Amino acid sequence: MSIGLDLVPGELALAIEGLPLVDHHAHGVSTQTLPRAAFEALITESDRPVPEWMTQFDSQVGFAILRHCAPLLGLQPSCTPEEYLARRARLGAAEISRTLLGAARIGHFLVETGYRAGEVLGPSGMAELTGVPADEVVRLEAVAEQVAADGCGAAAFARRFEEALWERTRTARGLKTVAAYRCGLDFDPTPPPSEEVTQAAGRWLAAGGGRLDDPVLVRHLVWCGLERGLPLQFHIGYGDPDVDLRRCDPLLLRGLIELAEPTGVPIMLLHCYPYQRNAGFLTQAYPNVFFDVGLGVHFSGARADALVAESLELAPFAKVLFSSDGFGPAELHYLGAELWRRAMQRVLGGFVTEGEWSAAQAARVAAMVGGGNARRVYGLGVPGQPDCDGGA
Amino acid sequence: MSIGLDLVPGELALAIEGLPLVDHHAHGVSTQTLPRAAFEALITESDRPVPEWMTQFDSQVGFAILRHCAPLLGLQPSCTPEEYLARRARLGAAEISRTLLGAARIGHFLVETGYRAGEVLGPSGMAELTGVPADEVVRLEAVAEQVAADGCGAAAFARRFEEALWERTRTARGLKTVAAYRCGLDFDPTPPPSEEVTQAAGRWLAAGGGRLDDPVLVRHLVWCGLERGLPLQFHIGYGDPDVDLRRCDPLLLRGLIELAEPTGVPIMLLHCYPYQRNAGFLTQAYPNVFFDVGLGVHFSGARADALVAESLELAPFAKVLFSSDGFGPAELHYLGAELWRRAMQRVLGGFVTEGEWSAAQAARVAAMVGGGNARRVYGLGVPGQPDCDGGA
Amino acid sequence: MSIGLDLVPGELALAIEGLPLVDHHAHGVSTQTLPRAAFEALITESDRPVPEWMTQFDSQVGFAILRHCAPLLGLQPSCTPEEYLARRARLGAAEISRTLLGAARIGHFLVETGYRAGEVLGPSGMAELTGVPADEVVRLEAVAEQVAADGCGAAAFARRFEEALWERTRTARGLKTVAAYRCGLDFDPTPPPSEEVTQAAGRWLAAGGGRLDDPVLVRHLVWCGLERGLPLQFHIGYGDPDVDLRRCDPLLLRGLIELAEPTGVPIMLLHCYPYQRNAGFLTQAYPNVFFDVGLGVHFSGARADALVAESLELAPFAKVLFSSDGFGPAELHYLGAELWRRAMQRVLGGFVTEGEWSAAQAARVAAMVGGGNARRVYGLGVPGQPDCDGGA
Repeated sequence: MSIGLDLVPGELALAIEGLPLVDHHAHGVSTQTLPRAAFEALITESDRPVPEWMTQFDSQVGFAILRHCAPLLGLQPSCTPEEYLARRARLGAAEISRTLLGAARIGHFLVETGYRAGEVLGPSGMAELTGVPADEVVRLEAVAEQVAADGCGAAAFARRFEEALWERTRTARGLKTVAAYRCGLDFDPTPPPSEEVTQAAGRWLAAGGGRLDDPVLVRHLVWCGLERGLPLQFHIGYGDPDVDLRRCDPLLLRGLIELAEPTGVPIMLLHCYPYQRNAGFLTQAYPNVFFDVGLGVHFSGARADALVAESLELAPFAKVLFSSDGFGPAELHYLGAELWRRAMQRVLGGFVTEGEWSAAQAARVAAMVGGGNARRVYGLGVPGQPDCDGGA
Repeated sequence: MSIGLDLVPGELALAIEGLPLVDHHAHGVSTQTLPRAAFEALITESDRPVPEWMTQFDSQVGFAILRHCAPLLGLQPSCTPEEYLARRARLGAAEISRTLLGAARIGHFLVETGYRAGEVLGPSGMAELTGVPADEVVRLEAVAEQVAADGCGAAAFARRFEEALWERTRTARGLKTVAAYRCGLDFDPTPPPSEEVTQAAGRWLAAGGGRLDDPVLVRHLVWCGLERGLPLQFHIGYGDPDVDLRRCDPLLLRGLIELAEPTGVPIMLLHCYPYQRNAGFLTQAYPNVFFDVGLGVHFSGARADALVAESLELAPFAKVLFSSDGFGPAELHYLGAELWRRAMQRVLGGFVTEGEWSAAQAARVAAMVGGGNARRVYGLGVPGQPDCDGGA
Repeated sequence: MSIGLDLVPGELALAIEGLPLVDHHAHGVSTQTLPRAAFEALITESDRPVPEWMTQFDSQVGFAILRHCAPLLGLQPSCTPEEYLARRARLGAAEISRTLLGAARIGHFLVETGYRAGEVLGPSGMAELTGVPADEVVRLEAVAEQVAADGCGAAAFARRFEEALWERTRTARGLKTVAAYRCGLDFDPTPPPSEEVTQAAGRWLAAGGGRLDDPVLVRHLVWCGLERGLPLQFHIGYGDPDVDLRRCDPLLLRGLIELAEPTGVPIMLLHCYPYQRNAGFLTQAYPNVFFDVGLGVHFSGARADALVAESLELAPFAKVLFSSDGFGPAELHYLGAELWRRAMQRVLGGFVTEGEWSAAQAARVAAMVGGGNARRVYGLGVPGQPDCDGGA
């Protein structure tokens, strides 16, 4: 059972409120003023136009924006969408972003740069805007598509991709794959033979490159990523309609997880909704698996405590992370953090008031999930001290 | 977190209690006095005889009947099954139905007529009994089976079905398909070529017609339904043992949903238990998808708030509907409504007391889910005003 | 909604605390003192070494041990793992087991003996240690593997297995199959023809016997088990990494359940996490299906109430059982019982305080799930009276 915020033991509430989070998977904020249609399109995973008989504000994330972001812009909580958007337009995207990202109290961003990069800030922009470190997570498919766009023959593709990957990730903290979107997670988990890769690259390049969704190439990218050795993030579960949610169950990765185990590369399962319990099982079973429930947290709004609670069943606490998966409006980054803090207080607070956990245990778990685990996995170092791996 | 009814803000409780619901998917009530075995057989989805070592009253729905229906019949709450059934027999089915349906405070029924129609009231009987409008939802498979029963050759089947469908649906508000029962939802989503339909019809008719479960014919019916243009209801998830629950995941409809999107026909996912989160995802992703958690609400009794809560995560609030799926004893219609009202109070009340939603937002969402969305989708018009489409 | 323990009506709390449980699926306790690494290896389903950057104590089950077992050993609740293990070593395994099993208040154990039997007590050892009856559940695969180990030709295998099964189960109360681990639950549900069994046995024996995972042989064992006629337990859902969780959904057993229905043999679905709702559906649909949420209860610790609550949705209450699935450290047996009692109080207590159930109904359901159902299904008789079937 989770409890009301007013019942959370004060020291635990303070501890969670005061955590400098590590957002181990976010995208940049958008720097443009967003008209209503564009804003509504960014607060849903749907890529369809909003039907004229509804508004995306009538949703958990919409209500959460009006409730939690409005006061930060000087408005009443749960104001109207019109009031909110008018204030937003008046303040401008830069001011909004500064305010909301500041209120998110993130201590370190890992910014994934492979999605509509031109529309949002990159890591350095995020670092500049927030005054905290922001490192890059490189999307494998984006690197491969850039290799194709730069011109490349089939025979050279594998080598060119490998070179590009190492070049692009010199200072990166992690890798990301959207295999879930491109071919589903039910792909053959073995590394494809090089002749198959060349053939598949030939077909793809002959068709003009572009969106890489050939399962052989996706597998090749994943295995190059494992060889590269940085923590490898997988999109899991819920996303835009491009995703076949049935083929995004993390249990489908079992074969790959087992094959990847000897590499020691951390497999990071992102989002996971509604498969968070399956993800929790995998993290208990396999030492190389980690997960978070980002994205689902802000999209489920007042129900975020249910997701957070379900993520704390089978998983060892050293294997659960925090992310916002914010993209575009800084509202999503802020809500990812704010709703997580509130959910953690309700859920862990419930464990404590029910006499199941001590308050000290709860605060320690919150610190692990909120940042400590990510600092260890990505080698980020403790705030105010050099990184674990001596990097930036 | 959901909260106790005693903590629900008074204005919200009143708003939800006072809603004239639209039950967008119900069957008729039974007009016969039901002996104990028959009654018990109707308060479970099992079609097996109740084992002699148990009673269906020992279940969530059984306890809910004794708790909520008994007082309406002048008995103590949570009386014994024997007391309940004795009172029920004494009052008679007509009186029971009037009492319970009246207490359900339904403002408009959409009655599906394709299942054991001879045992329960049809739309006009329901309208007469309740004094509120009751429109028809026509089951595609029942129309096709009637065409076969009336005598029809394979070559004529497609045309005859189309004629019969238009004739049968002149005043209908919606269509329903039980593809989930007949072939599972993992059917090929494309419209079948007419020669395949003729061949499949030939096989089916040669075998004497009867239960239509050929996947080609089911697909044909679904596509004829989409062409007819009324909102198309799909049985999803939980049902009787005839259903292979693994093949009733709404995610299996993704292909059809995408192919149907240009038609603009609303796809109504019914029941959905235990796949309500998957259904919520589909409603966020696709503008043409809607869903409810009827059936599961009364069968889960004291746990109905969990289902209702899970239905309010990803779904835009304009896409969630109410239904009872009551069939037979009016207890099921009443409990579908009563347990939904109680669950909504607990769940939305929790959002409000936790400071996540305003009470006004909560009341508005309850009104949308309870009736407004159905009125819009089915063109039912506002109470006291002409229908949106000018119909009855 | 579940409620805090302090709000549970006193009579209900007393009733649940005082129940003599029937643990219808447990393994023996370990009789050796366990060094830390061995202890940590037994409080997770993972079979991998614990990474050096974490401890299994940082998990729900770890916290539950420190919270609930420590006081029984004279320590403060939520002490450190070091304190706990030091005290554990000082007291010794026998004393620990006596203390924790005594505190579990189990009235009757059914002990499954087919897993690492040499490391833990058998039924008579458990009976001696606890002073309550302990009967055997025989694992089909272990019997078959013993037949192979004893030397057996392919042609004789089927007969020899049948003889061994009847011999081994003369006083057994139930059978168990780990088909889920060996070939997944998506096996052909029909009994294999005897010539196929002989061929499969030939292949298996020629390869030296050992782990039996041929689907034909697994099916043969299951059907021999159904013929033997004792309640047949299936591992379902969550387990060690040997399990492909996707292939352990109980819905996969639908075909077998229907084929087995005429035999009247109770099909006992064990554990079921995270598929407890699917299991609940099956128990409503089919008279021959029963289930529990053991294992998941102690591994989810402070979240056990969520699992228990989800197990009480569709299932008739006569179909739900209690088990601990404890293996090795007696902490698991104790927590299986203690966390179940606490969860039942919170969940049923919530139903009562919310006015959905009467306290008498809640106490009766707790008694059914806690022991009465198992006594009926396994013919164990009421405490203090002869067994239903006149056996020991």
